[in-house]
Amino acid sequence: MANDKALRKTTKAVGSAGAARPTKGKRRGQRRHDANVENILGSAASLFAEKSFGLASIREIAARANISFPRIYYYLRNKEELLYLVAERGLERLIKSYEERSAQITDPAEKLRLFIENHFTSAISSPAEAKVLLQETSKLSQTYLSRIREMERQYAETGRALLTDLARANGKQLSRARSRILVSLLFGALNSLGNWYDPARDEAHLQEIAEEIYRLFASAVQ
Amino acid sequence: MANDKALRKTTKAVGSAGAARPTKGKRRGQRRHDANVENILGSAASLFAEKSFGLASIREIAARANISFPRIYYYLRNKEELLYLVAERGLERLIKSYEERSAQITDPAEKLRLFIENHFTSAISSPAEAKVLLQETSKLSQTYLSRIREMERQYAETGRALLTDLARANGKQLSRARSRILVSLLFGALNSLGNWYDPARDEAHLQEIAEEIYRLFASAVQ
Repeated sequence: MANDKALRKTTKAVGSAGAARPTKGKRRGQRRHDANVENILGSAASLFAEKSFGLASIREIAARANISFPRIYYYLRNKEELLYLVAERGLERLIKSYEERSAQITDPAEKLRLFIENHFTSAISSPAEAKVLLQETSKLSQTYLSRIREMERQYAETGRALLTDLARANGKQLSRARSRILVSLLFGALNSLGNWYDPARDEAHLQEIAEEIYRLFASAVQ
Repeated sequence: MANDKALRKTTKAVGSAGAARPTKGKRRGQRRHDANVENILGSAASLFAEKSFGLASIREIAARANISFPRIYYYLRNKEELLYLVAERGLERLIKSYEERSAQITDPAEKLRLFIENHFTSAISSPAEAKVLLQETSKLSQTYLSRIREMERQYAETGRALLTDLARANGKQLSRARSRILVSLLFGALNSLGNWYDPARDEAHLQEIAEEIYRLFASAVQ
């Protein structure tokens, strides 16, 4: 029971972490609770990314978050829930930031460019979360996994629709099969950044890389 | 000492596994040794891909290869050596098959097309090896890791040279920075197949997918 209450609290705090909301009237206890949740999720993300989900322990995550080992269980039920929350938060942030940034844009070329840039900068600014989303979520059990896969499917669908819209603006009809292949390759190119992006060498080429990806896929539907 | 001998034997057998050589005069013992090595490396690749390097045990690998637990140590020193040998064999096969298939081809567009198709079909026909190469090699310690990274660097250099050659054939000069970005994105698109390729759905589109990747990158250097 106590655990269930903690879980609901955690899930709510995490689920609304990215939303803009007034913090003024917030109780100090709640702010501290949210800060601890952020802290735990950040520590979990970095340890899952470094050691993999299987090899990272709750004990290490608690130590990195500076929370005592027994106390961390006030915030979470088990390690799998933590993986789920890290993945959910990562996807929510990615989707929300694209939605906010694209709200005023109608040109399909500009929207695609922004989608690429948003994905790209998210992955670079949160490399641990990006790595967990790519390599660790497959270890979730069915219920958690299907929720994450459904969020990913919707996000991919957004990308697919952008390619289809841009093709249409160019007077072309993109078949369902081809748009699916193209959007899969687009995510492949975008998600490869974690494997080769080196800030020391590539930071000066950031805009160039995003533009290169945009050009590759925009010209495919021209 | 006994272990060192076993290692040399293993490394030799694996290192030359892909080469065409007469097997007629081969002693039966050596053929059986090679078959066991193949068997162990195949079992190791599939278990590393399923459970990750950290969570797969030598005991499970021996069981899957149908070799007794003590006897498997005749063929290898430890689990890390096994990961190294799986990765080395995967890269050697990939590189060798491109070299053999491209030996008679001079047209830079055809060479790039073949490079893409070869990488693509290798990943699809050996999904476990492909996954290990992408996700597990980072867990190797320095000496082994640097050998694998050097092979990967040379292979990537082949792809980069193909893009540069094709640009030159189109009368264009590709800067070093741009060819590096393009080849990284090309590998990103190619290596994403393991995440989304579904034989039931995509096998009918195999040629179309390879052609789509070729067109994306060939038009980038046009």
